[in-house]
Amino acid sequence: MKFDLNRSIEILQNTPSVLESFLHNLSDSWFLSNEGPDTWSPFDIVGHLVHGEQTDWMERTNIILFGEDKHFKKFDRFAQLEESKGKTIGDLLTEFRTLREKNIEFVKGLALTEDKLDLKGIHPSFGEVTLRQLLSTWVVHDLNHIAQIARIMAKQYSDETGPWIEYLPILTK
Amino acid sequence: MKFDLNRSIEILQNTPSVLESFLHNLSDSWFLSNEGPDTWSPFDIVGHLVHGEQTDWMERTNIILFGEDKHFKKFDRFAQLEESKGKTIGDLLTEFRTLREKNIEFVKGLALTEDKLDLKGIHPSFGEVTLRQLLSTWVVHDLNHIAQIARIMAKQYSDETGPWIEYLPILTK
Repeated sequence: MKFDLNRSIEILQNTPSVLESFLHNLSDSWFLSNEGPDTWSPFDIVGHLVHGEQTDWMERTNIILFGEDKHFKKFDRFAQLEESKGKTIGDLLTEFRTLREKNIEFVKGLALTEDKLDLKGIHPSFGEVTLRQLLSTWVVHDLNHIAQIARIMAKQYSDETGPWIEYLPILTK
Repeated sequence: MKFDLNRSIEILQNTPSVLESFLHNLSDSWFLSNEGPDTWSPFDIVGHLVHGEQTDWMERTNIILFGEDKHFKKFDRFAQLEESKGKTIGDLLTEFRTLREKNIEFVKGLALTEDKLDLKGIHPSFGEVTLRQLLSTWVVHDLNHIAQIARIMAKQYSDETGPWIEYLPILTK
């Protein structure tokens, strides 16, 4: 599938509800457990998604479209470990929904043409990247973390499925 | 985490909403595309989940608890390819929700004790398995397919993310 802005927004728009449905009415242990030392819990991931809405996707979009200096700042992948302290999962989900809705409105207002989607910024590791690649990555990044949340929760039952583990790639791959 | 019936039901109960949030208001191409020849689309997966609610989890629970013959029938992993024909994704999601709600009520009504969870059936490939393992697998199976749906949709944009693919394990693992 080629990048299409409307189709991208379809996915981006659903993510707050996907996360809310996935993480509501659960015992803490489902969303506070992780996959072992130095790995994230679903709670950490929602914090990471919040931080991305605040400092990554739109900031970089602005740099590409309007920045004099086209260099992106490095994204802090661990900021949420501090920023989420004292918050509940419900707080983070609400914060994520609010930011996401605002960011989708912002993107819609940019009236992005194919030419604008070809514009470039400079990524700290990759060098030149296009706005089209940035927005595609925003979409895939959501899906990546939804799959990760499913995997982390599944792994809490790794020892419980007995021989069926063989049929459950989420536990073994 | 050790198997716990109430905590398992928390996950099983959320799955219909997770799937609905994930797959609603999307262009067909998001849920009808797959990962290549002989792979499933999100549409096929929802059909597979429907078939599981109809013929797998509760049928096997019944065999373990009440069956004279403790042998499970082989589960047909491809039944949905016929059974979903002519249905919309909305039809399948509604069917799944109805069956899942009924099955959760059924399980709650069984008043399962630790002793009952230790009871066994005979799986066509694995031999003896316990009810606890069957119900744990029901939970992980949901999560496995939610992650798979995320991956299938993400892969539609494999060529669009440019160098970021390196940071997106969902596209490469």
